[in-house]
Amino acid sequence: MPKPEQPNDVAFHRLTTGEPVLVDVLPAIEALPGMTKNTVLTSGPPLAWSEYEGGQREGLIGGALYEGLARDREEAIAKFDAGEIKIGGCHDFGAVGSLAGICTASMAVFAVENRAYGNFGYCNIYEGMAPKRLNYGVYDDEVHDRLVRIDTVIAPLLRAAVRASGGIDLSPIMRRALHMGDELHSRNTAASLLFARELFPHLIGLAEGQDDSVRSLVSILTEDHYFFLRLSMAAAKSIADAAHGIDGSSLVTAMCFSCKEFGIRVSGLGDEWIRGPHASVQAKLFDGYTEDEISWMGGESPITETVGLGGFAQAAAFPLQNYQGGDPQVMVDRNLALYDIVHGENPNFQIPFLRYRGTPTGIDIAKVVETGTLPIMDIGIAGAGGGQIGAGTVRAPMACFEAAAEKQSNHLKVDTT
Amino acid sequence: MPKPEQPNDVAFHRLTTGEPVLVDVLPAIEALPGMTKNTVLTSGPPLAWSEYEGGQREGLIGGALYEGLARDREEAIAKFDAGEIKIGGCHDFGAVGSLAGICTASMAVFAVENRAYGNFGYCNIYEGMAPKRLNYGVYDDEVHDRLVRIDTVIAPLLRAAVRASGGIDLSPIMRRALHMGDELHSRNTAASLLFARELFPHLIGLAEGQDDSVRSLVSILTEDHYFFLRLSMAAAKSIADAAHGIDGSSLVTAMCFSCKEFGIRVSGLGDEWIRGPHASVQAKLFDGYTEDEISWMGGESPITETVGLGGFAQAAAFPLQNYQGGDPQVMVDRNLALYDIVHGENPNFQIPFLRYRGTPTGIDIAKVVETGTLPIMDIGIAGAGGGQIGAGTVRAPMACFEAAAEKQSNHLKVDTT
Repeated sequence: MPKPEQPNDVAFHRLTTGEPVLVDVLPAIEALPGMTKNTVLTSGPPLAWSEYEGGQREGLIGGALYEGLARDREEAIAKFDAGEIKIGGCHDFGAVGSLAGICTASMAVFAVENRAYGNFGYCNIYEGMAPKRLNYGVYDDEVHDRLVRIDTVIAPLLRAAVRASGGIDLSPIMRRALHMGDELHSRNTAASLLFARELFPHLIGLAEGQDDSVRSLVSILTEDHYFFLRLSMAAAKSIADAAHGIDGSSLVTAMCFSCKEFGIRVSGLGDEWIRGPHASVQAKLFDGYTEDEISWMGGESPITETVGLGGFAQAAAFPLQNYQGGDPQVMVDRNLALYDIVHGENPNFQIPFLRYRGTPTGIDIAKVVETGTLPIMDIGIAGAGGGQIGAGTVRAPMACFEAAAEKQSNHLKVDTT
Repeated sequence: MPKPEQPNDVAFHRLTTGEPVLVDVLPAIEALPGMTKNTVLTSGPPLAWSEYEGGQREGLIGGALYEGLARDREEAIAKFDAGEIKIGGCHDFGAVGSLAGICTASMAVFAVENRAYGNFGYCNIYEGMAPKRLNYGVYDDEVHDRLVRIDTVIAPLLRAAVRASGGIDLSPIMRRALHMGDELHSRNTAASLLFARELFPHLIGLAEGQDDSVRSLVSILTEDHYFFLRLSMAAAKSIADAAHGIDGSSLVTAMCFSCKEFGIRVSGLGDEWIRGPHASVQAKLFDGYTEDEISWMGGESPITETVGLGGFAQAAAFPLQNYQGGDPQVMVDRNLALYDIVHGENPNFQIPFLRYRGTPTGIDIAKVVETGTLPIMDIGIAGAGGGQIGAGTVRAPMACFEAAAEKQSNHLKVDTT
């Protein structure tokens, strides 16, 4: 295959030839470049501390307490006010966060190496099925104890098994999961099982003397459809970052949001976030919740859509209709419409119902502006009182793409003078 | 729910309320009622020894040799000729066979209890991915060694894990697998993983000192999409048998074939097989094989279609198009047409793409004759030279249904005199 020359061809080529391999599980302080003991990472284009509100603010405070950076809530707030505890955006540390995306120095993260390009993507570990979780803006004794257990029992076992495996190639898992009803954002049921299968032989040798911990890990790996999401996100981050920084490329390399706003990064437009308002969400809420409880707490899982998964692979995941609402034919039609705003079809990620057509991949800001079709994302929905209250789909805001298109137009003008 | 009174309502109720639970893994001689040391079981309505031909005859000879009933091929043939080695139909021993369906006294079988009705269904264990297998009519040193390993290493581990589990409920696995791209006949990818997940925790405790055997079992459980088929078949047999023997019911409770013919059993028409010719097959052959190599060697896996799976759930399994050919829309249309020939919709087995409509269940011979729509089955294809050469779909022959309808009409006349 000849090497592509056009900027968008180069970016698309990198987006579709990444080889994400899970190589380690490490405390964030050991893994993330630039991470410090007194930094709390969170989702979205970074804001000033005073700008964070609701669940995302609560998550930041909870992260500071979990890390022992403050003795109580008041001290944590005072230290954030004084800048003694710093806030970072996950993306700027090579990581992605789910929902509030709180990550502190001692939290274990998956280290995924993109072996085709040598860069890494990171994401911390799923907290489990409990509705109250730090990444949904809740921090209490139960959340604390679960995080401690993840970092001191689960992560070390995962680390030992992953190291014993020599690295777990995530691409084959992701490709196969798309043929088993997953879209690898809001549904990771098959991928979690396929990942557990890869891990299990390496867990057997570790079992002696700690059978119960191994059983507990196996249960966490497969108890619902979310464990693999963090791996899907870390893999997507490692893939997308390799496609970033191609001068002249108008392909999107990151989409995420904070409690306040949505942001995108474009391959040829540097590391600055191009920001816009939140878009409206189509949600299916768990019983007993209402639309006015929906709360934005941040989220960087749309990195999966950035590489052709999630909302861009809905026609691979009809069972999502039970979880996030929708209708099979609507899912097919929506998926087909997304081919109009991307650079090409993904040779790895394919959709059985579309006769194994590759997923639409490489969102082109120019095509979004031209067609008016907005990228669609599958997301979990947080409630104002904390915890997950449902799931749904959301469209990225047009303002980001218009601003990006204008920025690119200025950038190209500068280039040619 | 009021108890159904009409015969077909009773049979349908039983077909859709079975609770198959894997309770043990045992040598056939210990499990199957009536099994003897010198009996070789095989698929399909039983024939005289002289009638068996091709791969099915080779399979019978191979079974006799594996069981040590003869020292060599010539002695085996002589003993079959003399009736010293007996032949039985799997169905008559509460079991079902895949392809040639060879089962001998020392072979391990899954014992599946239908806890709603107290009866059992049995099936022996998948031989693995090798193209040459006893159930495809091949018996050589390699096949022999693999069978020995299954009976002496794999089956005892499975037995220990299943017993430690207290029984593995197969219904939740089957229900969920239908939402993950399986139809539980020609595709069991998700079900095999889900079954492995249930088994994992019980394997960990067994690992000490035999790590390699446990790893080998884990690999066999999940290496391809066929391990769970034998459990799907045993579960379906336990479900279908509970619906058999309802006087006046015209619902089919078994479909199978031998090398020579196809046969069905009807709930209200006793244990006699109603026989007909083979139907033509729509096959996708592995590279290098041609249609004239397709060979009938028997098969009882259509017990899955009898309970609303396999060909009756194709719209749950679009990835099958890669394996057995076909087109997503054709799969949907074919699946929808089958609702015309069944008694109702399965409340347990549901198809996401059809908005979770229950699979068409309870094939009614009267409706088949009236509409001319024949039951469709997903099957593996054997080659004349032995081994699997492809996969495809086949329709049951109309002759069986016409003969059954006539038999029922005579039966009803007799009843009313």
